[in-house]
Amino acid sequence: MLGVDPGLVATGYGVIAAGAGGVEVLDTGVVATAASLGLEARVQLIFDGIHRLLEKYDPSVLALEDLYTTPRFPRTALLMAHARGVVCLAARQRGVSVLALAPAEVKRAVAAHGAAAKVQVQRGVTHLLGLETPPRSSHVADALALALTAFSRLGGRLS
Amino acid sequence: MLGVDPGLVATGYGVIAAGAGGVEVLDTGVVATAASLGLEARVQLIFDGIHRLLEKYDPSVLALEDLYTTPRFPRTALLMAHARGVVCLAARQRGVSVLALAPAEVKRAVAAHGAAAKVQVQRGVTHLLGLETPPRSSHVADALALALTAFSRLGGRLS
Repeated sequence: MLGVDPGLVATGYGVIAAGAGGVEVLDTGVVATAASLGLEARVQLIFDGIHRLLEKYDPSVLALEDLYTTPRFPRTALLMAHARGVVCLAARQRGVSVLALAPAEVKRAVAAHGAAAKVQVQRGVTHLLGLETPPRSSHVADALALALTAFSRLGGRLS
Repeated sequence: MLGVDPGLVATGYGVIAAGAGGVEVLDTGVVATAASLGLEARVQLIFDGIHRLLEKYDPSVLALEDLYTTPRFPRTALLMAHARGVVCLAARQRGVSVLALAPAEVKRAVAAHGAAAKVQVQRGVTHLLGLETPPRSSHVADALALALTAFSRLGGRLS
């Protein structure tokens, strides 16, 4: 299960799988792109990064957050959508299903209620995966939360 | 010169080149995607369509409209940005430069002033390219206007 939190500046990812002792983290990280690069170079870095993860781990599903509109940062949202577009393309080219999850469903799955704050999501992820320390990046925490929610939705047991 | 007007429902394109008798249209069309398909299938159709055009015509430049935010249709804009992201990726993968043009520059180039209406852009494109009838689709007209503006910006003579 691969969770991805797309962003033009930083795209977080987390790969999990069912292991002997519960859900295991196989990989986490961030594909970061420098603002000095052109948009087309940046989407290529994101596409290549996700493509490599799909090749390496061959997940059954790529989980993303549902598309929602925000009136607050329209330009940031448009740039995120460029990144999200190439993430969807990478999944499609590898024949990996894309599962778009509503933020409230993700929060319910990892933090017990649909209006949980960011820090509660982070704690939930840390607890459910038995991590010693919370993920450094909120993009990684969000990506892991998406992967965990997809895992649970498809019948996996989270705890 | 390839002009592209990205959209998730319909992505217009126009290919032009300098010919003996002035600027010539080599190809125009629309990559249309059915709403019944998933987002990832739709971005793949758009990517594949643009990829094929780049292979076939090997343009030096792919011209797009500048990214601008609109408060009116935020969801449409987000979906457009998914399409725009994969168009940029297709160009980058083929080593084709992306030229992002401001709407006002495009209008000045093809319709003589920066606040021209859609119909004036369409007439300008029809006139400059010596077309017998205006492009059927406004997406094609916009794509041709972008290609013409890029052609002019890079030193070509429009009339």
